[in-house]
Amino acid sequence: MRLRKIKEAKNEIEKSNYCVLNPSTNKGKWNKVFNNNNPIYIEIGMGKGKFIRDNAIKYPNINFIGIDKYDTLVYKAIKNIDINIPNLKVININAENLNDIFNKEIDLIFLNFSDPWPKERHEKRRLTNEKFLKIYESIFKNIDKIVLKTDNMNLFEYSLKSLNNYGYTFDNVSLNLHSNNKEDIITTEYEEKFMKKGNSIYQLECHK
Amino acid sequence: MRLRKIKEAKNEIEKSNYCVLNPSTNKGKWNKVFNNNNPIYIEIGMGKGKFIRDNAIKYPNINFIGIDKYDTLVYKAIKNIDINIPNLKVININAENLNDIFNKEIDLIFLNFSDPWPKERHEKRRLTNEKFLKIYESIFKNIDKIVLKTDNMNLFEYSLKSLNNYGYTFDNVSLNLHSNNKEDIITTEYEEKFMKKGNSIYQLECHK
Repeated sequence: MRLRKIKEAKNEIEKSNYCVLNPSTNKGKWNKVFNNNNPIYIEIGMGKGKFIRDNAIKYPNINFIGIDKYDTLVYKAIKNIDINIPNLKVININAENLNDIFNKEIDLIFLNFSDPWPKERHEKRRLTNEKFLKIYESIFKNIDKIVLKTDNMNLFEYSLKSLNNYGYTFDNVSLNLHSNNKEDIITTEYEEKFMKKGNSIYQLECHK
Repeated sequence: MRLRKIKEAKNEIEKSNYCVLNPSTNKGKWNKVFNNNNPIYIEIGMGKGKFIRDNAIKYPNINFIGIDKYDTLVYKAIKNIDINIPNLKVININAENLNDIFNKEIDLIFLNFSDPWPKERHEKRRLTNEKFLKIYESIFKNIDKIVLKTDNMNLFEYSLKSLNNYGYTFDNVSLNLHSNNKEDIITTEYEEKFMKKGNSIYQLECHK
């Protein structure tokens, strides 16, 4: 996605209650941020935040943290939160720094429509590359659970191999997630567009 | 595939040099059948045999055994062998009996366009069900290597999960095998039909 920079994004983020500004100060004690010991699910690359917001509304007993490296997207995500959602926070960081922010306290990671980085020389930038799987390992609590959705065939092929090779057990593989018109699936903005075009959405749920 | 029974199939098979009639007598000594110690690759459900025949011609230093439970198909496969291929044999048995026939002597199993058995109550009949993976385990020599091709999305989803859960390491996953017009791919009769329709062919190469 080509992203138009919004100048006031950084300032606006700083004013929001949803954005955690110095996230590394909460390392190992995110339960205090939420004031409870509920599980914590994060989305890496939340974009405009529809998916993480809808999840937080639907599952009030789970804490959700949306993460994006672009301040413009974090700003848009915050703007899209129109009701009070106590179990939702957002952070503006790069996934490479996740282990500065969390320490064995995450229960599930969502990877939705991540950048496929199709060129082979960019393989290490893909969020299912071994480099990132190692980072995730250090932030997961007990069971390492990843739920991945994408419309990109090559990224999905790559991720199936990469997650298998890293020792993940597959719980569910779908090569056409919306084929049965399951209405209870929470979608991203991007996913809505692709569904309308009739494109296949791939999904993998796995754990380690 | 609906199969028209050919009456003379059984008799004709018995006359052929390619068909091994009492295969269990060779258990543990298939190298003697081929008169060499080359690797042995088998195809379970060879159909009319194009794939296994083309492989045997292309790779003379590998021994190939085509297996099918239908005598009519074994007969058709034999009829399709029009030149002398010393590294090719066929067997008319059910995959459930593979461990009566082989003992730790197979290097690779091909599963091509296997019956998807879509009903849940028939799950155990799918050739990537745990029941069959256990049988394969007893016939593999050192490394258990499986190469699976199908056009059936649900069977492929099922097989990815089943083989991952059984401990197989994925070497290659393709969700559209013929997308790059790779001309060196050996196809089955069925595959040729599907390619012409423009359908996706899925392939998994894995080992344990």
